[in-house]
Amino acid sequence: MNYRMIKYLLGWILLFEAAFLVLPVTVAAIYKEEALIAFLITVAVCAAVGGLLTIRKPKTTDLSARDGFVAVALSWIIMSLFGAIPFMLTGVTESFIDAIFETVSGFTTTGATIFSDVEILPRSIIMWRSFTHWIGGMGVLVFIMAFLPLSGARNMYIMKAESPGPEVSKLVPKVKTTAKWLYSVYIGLTVLEFIMLLFGEMNVFEALNAAFATAGTGGFGWKNDSMASFSTYSQIVIAAFMLLFSVNFTSYFLILHRNFKGALTTEIKVFLGIVGVSVISIALNTKGLFETFWEALKHSFFTFSSIISTTGFMSVDFDLWPSFSQTILVLAMFVGACAGSTGGGIKVSRIVIMLKVMGRELSTALHPRQIKKVTVDDQVQDKGVVRSVYGYIFCFISVFVVSVVLISIEGHDLVTNFTSVAATMGNIGPGLSKVGPAMNYGFLSPLSKLVLIFDMLVGRLEFYPIILLMLPSTWRK
Amino acid sequence: MNYRMIKYLLGWILLFEAAFLVLPVTVAAIYKEEALIAFLITVAVCAAVGGLLTIRKPKTTDLSARDGFVAVALSWIIMSLFGAIPFMLTGVTESFIDAIFETVSGFTTTGATIFSDVEILPRSIIMWRSFTHWIGGMGVLVFIMAFLPLSGARNMYIMKAESPGPEVSKLVPKVKTTAKWLYSVYIGLTVLEFIMLLFGEMNVFEALNAAFATAGTGGFGWKNDSMASFSTYSQIVIAAFMLLFSVNFTSYFLILHRNFKGALTTEIKVFLGIVGVSVISIALNTKGLFETFWEALKHSFFTFSSIISTTGFMSVDFDLWPSFSQTILVLAMFVGACAGSTGGGIKVSRIVIMLKVMGRELSTALHPRQIKKVTVDDQVQDKGVVRSVYGYIFCFISVFVVSVVLISIEGHDLVTNFTSVAATMGNIGPGLSKVGPAMNYGFLSPLSKLVLIFDMLVGRLEFYPIILLMLPSTWRK
Repeated sequence: MNYRMIKYLLGWILLFEAAFLVLPVTVAAIYKEEALIAFLITVAVCAAVGGLLTIRKPKTTDLSARDGFVAVALSWIIMSLFGAIPFMLTGVTESFIDAIFETVSGFTTTGATIFSDVEILPRSIIMWRSFTHWIGGMGVLVFIMAFLPLSGARNMYIMKAESPGPEVSKLVPKVKTTAKWLYSVYIGLTVLEFIMLLFGEMNVFEALNAAFATAGTGGFGWKNDSMASFSTYSQIVIAAFMLLFSVNFTSYFLILHRNFKGALTTEIKVFLGIVGVSVISIALNTKGLFETFWEALKHSFFTFSSIISTTGFMSVDFDLWPSFSQTILVLAMFVGACAGSTGGGIKVSRIVIMLKVMGRELSTALHPRQIKKVTVDDQVQDKGVVRSVYGYIFCFISVFVVSVVLISIEGHDLVTNFTSVAATMGNIGPGLSKVGPAMNYGFLSPLSKLVLIFDMLVGRLEFYPIILLMLPSTWRK
Repeated sequence: MNYRMIKYLLGWILLFEAAFLVLPVTVAAIYKEEALIAFLITVAVCAAVGGLLTIRKPKTTDLSARDGFVAVALSWIIMSLFGAIPFMLTGVTESFIDAIFETVSGFTTTGATIFSDVEILPRSIIMWRSFTHWIGGMGVLVFIMAFLPLSGARNMYIMKAESPGPEVSKLVPKVKTTAKWLYSVYIGLTVLEFIMLLFGEMNVFEALNAAFATAGTGGFGWKNDSMASFSTYSQIVIAAFMLLFSVNFTSYFLILHRNFKGALTTEIKVFLGIVGVSVISIALNTKGLFETFWEALKHSFFTFSSIISTTGFMSVDFDLWPSFSQTILVLAMFVGACAGSTGGGIKVSRIVIMLKVMGRELSTALHPRQIKKVTVDDQVQDKGVVRSVYGYIFCFISVFVVSVVLISIEGHDLVTNFTSVAATMGNIGPGLSKVGPAMNYGFLSPLSKLVLIFDMLVGRLEFYPIILLMLPSTWRK
């Protein structure tokens, strides 16, 4: 294990975190908030520790697959621990575990909050919460690797470990250039949403928060009713951008290069198909709850986009919807967004591969001697990719089962237990019943919060880094 | 497709069904019930149609894999359609779909009933319900193939399609001899349970019903409170036999041949481990609900054995238990029994293979160049077996999702929708909430009943036969 290089990268994580914290510092300064001191202290701590860890550049910058997983897992943990400091220092929460929960929920773009009243929070804290979504959306370590001058570092393993989806598509031969492209798309779309929101009734502070939280498909808001009190215009802009950030960013690269056919992958077609059918079904099912069908359609569009993109904003309390609509929402929690987006969940591409494997197995049962490959978009899927889907699905099932059992010790109803795990592992945020969109996670026991913190991390990092970090065999020489 | 041979086999299914019906005919005659005529008519119909279909023995008795699946799927459907006739003719139900539901629930050893009051049913109907469990437990087509004088018929495909588990273990080179061995174990254990129950307070009629329903891991009873009003002795005998019938029957063969080490497979160890840990956990969680800890332990043992064996008897209304215990029961619904037993569910061996695959994938992530095989009991698992597990799990997830959506149209609570599908696909019987152990399935809409009938069949036949029956490609030349 290249400990020195991992230590060095963790140092850089903290230096970048210090830089990121300049945004809430600025907000605190503008609004003359007491929280300013808390944020300044955090910046100092991050910069000091980060500086210490990066004094000496390691001789070998090579990272093995194992190093990649460990570096990614540790960097997310470190980032969350230090990112929680402002919550403690400002006194918005006195519980250490609550502060960690909120920060992990931010970076993993979950958006599950422990605050029952977000409207009393300082604006700098609000901004930091939204900004953690934006930072976590694309992943920090890939970002750092793209900009650090580390010649010869094998960043492919970092990218594999941190990026969501069964496969990392290299747009161009160099990983660094690919990463820069993807971040440009990310920043471009965020700016676009910010500007479009300014055309509505939102002020700069609100539009910036909303844009950050949408871009990262996070879902932290600054109002207790999330997005329910905003205009139809703002709601539709946000709903549309939630979907735009759920699409594989590679497609935007291809569109910019006028390869429209290549951009419309099977995954995107299936994703859009799911969205279309579900939005209409939910609208028909809930139309009795609204004055007009269009009102039902708007809320259905907003809510379903919010859930499948794993953002978690709400325009209406869907915990009150009929069970057919709720069932579709719960299933969407599992499906999630497209691979290579900022969204969470199992990812549509994995579902597609799963269905293709099922079709192949059924066909092989009929014709035992036939040899058939799994193909998506006319391309034979690499054996490693298909196997990684099995690994992912089985990790998902195992962690899900253990988590639900641990949460059930507290004795809440089954829907609360089940959807709290689904909503955190899928990085969505709100679930149903006691963790419904009008509720929060603050009431849970420390054990349950720890379990859900774990679930948010494994959900965002897709199991391997965090699970491998805990296996003794990873640390064996 | 060898249509003639399939037709011939379906004919034999009906002839055997006519023979099986002699038991309820006898019961109706002994108790001088009006139902006697209904059963005699059914015998006549089965014998007539069966006789017509078996007049000509087909020239070629060879069956391809495809023929095997089609024969098995159709035989279960035919058997259920004709087996439903007595329910209609006796007038215990006027709904055709209810009669089919009850019969499919019987043959698939599910034990979900549409009757709100089973105590008013004629004894012959009670006996027919229990007997369908016993018939369906081991599968009829394998039984027929073992006894029909069809030289050269490739019954391996029938056995593969009808027997539960990822793998069919041939105990001896000839499939016929293997089948005869397994049926001998089945009959022997049933007789043993019957005798042991006679030592308690049950009369011959009761002991016979209980033995049939336990042996098939079915769960139909003759009292509205299932097994709650019986003595501790009877309850413990039944609980123990529910577990005995959940174990791979191959192990009994090995024990009879004094191969004790071979009999104690990984699957059985894991199964017993799950049972031990769960029973103690539930007992500790529910001890406040009972007068003594031993009482809690007894009900925990009975209930957990009933669920994991997928029988579905109850000694107490576990819908009133705390959510930790309920969560463990719901998970057990999915796990199910061992492969090669009469129990349903995903099967422990598939869970073991799933976990082994997960371990291999995690290890491959650390060491990308390593090649590692999946081994269980020191044996490298055949690639086909591992792949069949993927196929099964993905079919399970797909059918589960579609079923829950369809059931949710009726608008019941999520726990009812979710557990009704889990309890029928796993061939258990009772779920939670509105389909809890003290309730029944009679209140559901015809659509929901149709979905659950489908789920019971795919659960018992492990998806492939029924799904393939519906695929156009199966019928293509």
